[in-house]
Amino acid sequence: MVQLSISRRLRGTPYTARLEAAGVKAYTVYNHMLLPTVTESVEEDCAHLKQHVQVWDVSCERQIEIRGPDADKLVQLMTPRDLSKAQIDQCFYIPVVDERGGMLNDPVAIKLADDRFWISIADSDVMLWAKGLAYGFRFEVEIDEPDVNILAVQGPKADELMARVFGEQVHTIRFFRGLWLYFEGQSIYVARSGYSKQGGFEIYLEDRALAEPLWDALFAEGADLNVRPGGPNLIERIESGLLSYGNDMTRENTPFECGLGKFCDVETSIGCVGRDALMRYVIDGPMRMIRGLMIEGERVPGCREPWQLTADGGEFAGQITSAVWSPDFQNNVAIGMVERDYWRAGNTLWVDTPDGQRRAVVHDLPFSA
Amino acid sequence: MVQLSISRRLRGTPYTARLEAAGVKAYTVYNHMLLPTVTESVEEDCAHLKQHVQVWDVSCERQIEIRGPDADKLVQLMTPRDLSKAQIDQCFYIPVVDERGGMLNDPVAIKLADDRFWISIADSDVMLWAKGLAYGFRFEVEIDEPDVNILAVQGPKADELMARVFGEQVHTIRFFRGLWLYFEGQSIYVARSGYSKQGGFEIYLEDRALAEPLWDALFAEGADLNVRPGGPNLIERIESGLLSYGNDMTRENTPFECGLGKFCDVETSIGCVGRDALMRYVIDGPMRMIRGLMIEGERVPGCREPWQLTADGGEFAGQITSAVWSPDFQNNVAIGMVERDYWRAGNTLWVDTPDGQRRAVVHDLPFSA
Repeated sequence: MVQLSISRRLRGTPYTARLEAAGVKAYTVYNHMLLPTVTESVEEDCAHLKQHVQVWDVSCERQIEIRGPDADKLVQLMTPRDLSKAQIDQCFYIPVVDERGGMLNDPVAIKLADDRFWISIADSDVMLWAKGLAYGFRFEVEIDEPDVNILAVQGPKADELMARVFGEQVHTIRFFRGLWLYFEGQSIYVARSGYSKQGGFEIYLEDRALAEPLWDALFAEGADLNVRPGGPNLIERIESGLLSYGNDMTRENTPFECGLGKFCDVETSIGCVGRDALMRYVIDGPMRMIRGLMIEGERVPGCREPWQLTADGGEFAGQITSAVWSPDFQNNVAIGMVERDYWRAGNTLWVDTPDGQRRAVVHDLPFSA
Repeated sequence: MVQLSISRRLRGTPYTARLEAAGVKAYTVYNHMLLPTVTESVEEDCAHLKQHVQVWDVSCERQIEIRGPDADKLVQLMTPRDLSKAQIDQCFYIPVVDERGGMLNDPVAIKLADDRFWISIADSDVMLWAKGLAYGFRFEVEIDEPDVNILAVQGPKADELMARVFGEQVHTIRFFRGLWLYFEGQSIYVARSGYSKQGGFEIYLEDRALAEPLWDALFAEGADLNVRPGGPNLIERIESGLLSYGNDMTRENTPFECGLGKFCDVETSIGCVGRDALMRYVIDGPMRMIRGLMIEGERVPGCREPWQLTADGGEFAGQITSAVWSPDFQNNVAIGMVERDYWRAGNTLWVDTPDGQRRAVVHDLPFSA
């Protein structure tokens, strides 16, 4: 790892001071904002996440608010997922694609009211896409980035901790649903969601003044639960098959290649951007697909650029884009885009790592023991 | 400084291997890409830049290519600067604003042909804005991000070094103009431009295979010129009054506030986004303006978030967004947005730094000895 030069452009969050007082060791940059990546070490953080509960500063999951009479029209234009039956306070994982069907983002959309949505974005400036479309279509909408700063509470003890801070109502929240709950007299949107498979919640804090009180309450109430600061964990997210926009998929990929075909209702007559381009995938399927892979041998170095996959005969078979040593699997787990001829589970390929060529075996995602 | 966790999402460049072999000490992240910030130290790098010549990996200045029959229409829609007289191979600094006149980016546009432009962008996904507008207006254009990776050659010996590598023709290139020159038999666009006031060029390399040969040629030919790797230097750019999008200006600011009113031809009848919003500034002028400031006392810490400025009576007077100790001025130089009542050069204000309140004096930009 190298040092990060921090400036205002790499925005801090209302939790940064608490996080740095707690000794955060590394950041990445996400949506022009600091995202903590390491508390103790990636491996220790992973083990802790699977046993206890962590509080993550994921303020970098910026919200793009779209409101106004044409809000629903614009949000539907932005995704091939059919949102016509969307209910208020429901969350939707929506692929956002360009005119060629290339992924621009894979956000979660929340319908807050019939004329008001939050799009909780991955790492690209979706606001500019939404504003460009709205301007071109003369939609009656307002689009901005409200000062919403999400804390994720993740891990098997998340329900217990959240109930202590927000009350027993948290248990009633179903997966990908949300409720407005109270903290210090203010109403805050809380959803059962998050970028791990260990269970948990995301707290959409709107009032910056409550950021440190909320952080402090979670740590005070969670002391006996062994609560710790954390962040999206590379090992856990690869094991769980959680994709990362910019890592595992880019504008080069369609949702079908990313395993998100089930969120593409292109056959129903919805007028989204990219519909025509995506149509052929409904018939032919994709030519490559996101797959899990296990890479044999010693622990691999960090995957900083795609590692090419080849078949025994030397044919191009795809690329690996995320890889890490998994203590639980005692193997290197990886995510990659594998060509159609080679994507069957159990297939053995070669991968060019910076340490030399290794054997890699195709697996289904998520990895299972 | 903290550590940076690098992944594929923070894209490397074709020069990253050379840069890391040379011992780069820190990066920032810019347009989802690594941008080197420190070679020896910010102060030593600054002194060297002012005396010798540096090679900067500024691949993160991504090019957005807009081509097709409606390319000129789209580029003109994106900026209030009148481009009707633009000549081929000319560079234009263009504010890009949204419908309210808020800055979305401050790129340099290069007209490569009547139907082909490169927009050399600051840190925001201008491609999404351009694609959104093009889709909405049904423009006949193609928009993408070609694999152009810029090396900047900056410093007083830049002309000498460039002439050795590209030939004497480099001397004929005027400021903000470009020429197609040859390197290893391939034609490469070279402009007299760059993010310093020490003079120099930017080399728009399109063929990735030539990246390391070009790097190596510059270092071989420049050995006796004391050539070094470098990057945009915080001290030099503040002294020179070079603004940084995301640091000194955001979507909250209009071009008039950023001192870019001279690039806003809103009175001529061009149909750009934001024209109506910007119109009133032509009459009334802005209510706040980017200004230089010198902060008294010991060296200030890094400016990670805006530092508030107040007048003697406690009135809000603006904010500082970039600040650093300048060895040449033996003072802290800063850039900030100062409210109209207080922006006159020589005015004395108070600034809240993390180290406590200090005196700050308003200066014109660039700072002069």
